[in-house]
Amino acid sequence: MQAGIVGLGLIGGSLGLALKETRLFKNILGYDVNPLHQQQALNLGLIDECVSLDEISSSDVIFIAVPLDVVATIINGFKNIAPNQTIIDLGSTKSLIASLINSSIRKNYVGAHPMSGTEYSGPKAAKKDLFKNNILILTDTEQSGEFQIAFTKDIFVSLGMQIIKMNSYNHDAHIAYISHLPHILSFALANTVLGQEKPENILALIGGGFRDTSRLSKSSPITWCNIFKHNKTHLLESISEFEKNIALAKTYIKNEEWDKLENWMRMANSLYEFL
Amino acid sequence: MQAGIVGLGLIGGSLGLALKETRLFKNILGYDVNPLHQQQALNLGLIDECVSLDEISSSDVIFIAVPLDVVATIINGFKNIAPNQTIIDLGSTKSLIASLINSSIRKNYVGAHPMSGTEYSGPKAAKKDLFKNNILILTDTEQSGEFQIAFTKDIFVSLGMQIIKMNSYNHDAHIAYISHLPHILSFALANTVLGQEKPENILALIGGGFRDTSRLSKSSPITWCNIFKHNKTHLLESISEFEKNIALAKTYIKNEEWDKLENWMRMANSLYEFL
Repeated sequence: MQAGIVGLGLIGGSLGLALKETRLFKNILGYDVNPLHQQQALNLGLIDECVSLDEISSSDVIFIAVPLDVVATIINGFKNIAPNQTIIDLGSTKSLIASLINSSIRKNYVGAHPMSGTEYSGPKAAKKDLFKNNILILTDTEQSGEFQIAFTKDIFVSLGMQIIKMNSYNHDAHIAYISHLPHILSFALANTVLGQEKPENILALIGGGFRDTSRLSKSSPITWCNIFKHNKTHLLESISEFEKNIALAKTYIKNEEWDKLENWMRMANSLYEFL
Repeated sequence: MQAGIVGLGLIGGSLGLALKETRLFKNILGYDVNPLHQQQALNLGLIDECVSLDEISSSDVIFIAVPLDVVATIINGFKNIAPNQTIIDLGSTKSLIASLINSSIRKNYVGAHPMSGTEYSGPKAAKKDLFKNNILILTDTEQSGEFQIAFTKDIFVSLGMQIIKMNSYNHDAHIAYISHLPHILSFALANTVLGQEKPENILALIGGGFRDTSRLSKSSPITWCNIFKHNKTHLLESISEFEKNIALAKTYIKNEEWDKLENWMRMANSLYEFL
């Protein structure tokens, strides 16, 4: 069997490395619009060969790991997709893209979102264990072919992932809170410190807490602008909910309602009882 | 030489473990108002012996690692402090406490803040490497005795810390941004998710980003309520600055000003050039 990966950055590159270890595929083909990334992916051994999009399109399974704004265009551009081919979209939002997929290949298309990532991007950020022990969300599975869903599960289970199914609306709503909101907060925290007079004096004092909370602010602006664009409504809702919470804390502090503030923090402590 | 540690939680307990390794002191005495914590500290070998506050007060160096609201009371309560004794306050805010210290022992008192911590608390959270390779901020050093400052530096350098000096006003202002604000954000993020219908469905999707951003929400409400109380003004200012940034991002998203949003994220990326 042959696998093709479109987009050889953090996700696509890591997938190449991980798939090689499984030996599920005889060949792993790759494509990236950026020639430098193609070269890096080859040098790093993330894939076996770089080919054109057209050549990739005959693979048994085609993984799409590109910025969200080009996912549907690339998928709809594939010619002569056969009934037993599988096209797995690995993007971070799902509703809009699924709605754009041509109905003639809707059974081939699988919406999948691996809850794996780091703050780094590009082929050099690829890690073969990126997916291991993490969650893969499959969306609107009833609209994909049974064969395609079963094949997708097999592949990602063999990479050590746990599968969760969800409709794409709920996916986008939940993911706003668990992933997109934390990114916005981290970017905002970084800019808050950078906006102070002599931020270097503040940053000289960095400890583990700030390091963790600001880690996501290193993430790629291009990737994340695309994600925020695609999940605008849910993201705005999650930001508003967050703003209410921070305003509540501010009121408690301003009014010196320390008991209320302590209870508010105690409530937050319970988060990890759910995990 | 003899060291005494008042407060045997994360900071005091870790200090006991770390000091034992240096062999700078013949005896390391401990005290905690909570008898269970005293027993745990002894069982875990964090200190050599548990004694009364009065017995601790004759040590060459006394470390204070208790909630902020009792630091000054404990220090001012020590009787017969001799000129060559050193009292090191390890609390997370500095201005208010320094202003409360009796002038008769101001030379003995050293304001110190180790930029070390975890989200856990109590003796069982103690780690011998907690201080290694982290920063220790010494505040208002000109108001302490030269001997006391030199002694404090020797001790913490031997634990592998880097020393930064700062006046207590600047300390409290900077620390609001680098430590207290990230804690408030993390608590607020946790409560935002917990406030949603069926938070367990959202939390089932947890990845590394949310895990890092929400880590500080596990922190002790008692410790942190005290810290927020002591740094009220600076903290409120830092929250307001953060709110402006999040409102800016929200406006860009609402108005679909994606170029501006991307630039805003690119600016945040530059944070790590300072580190």
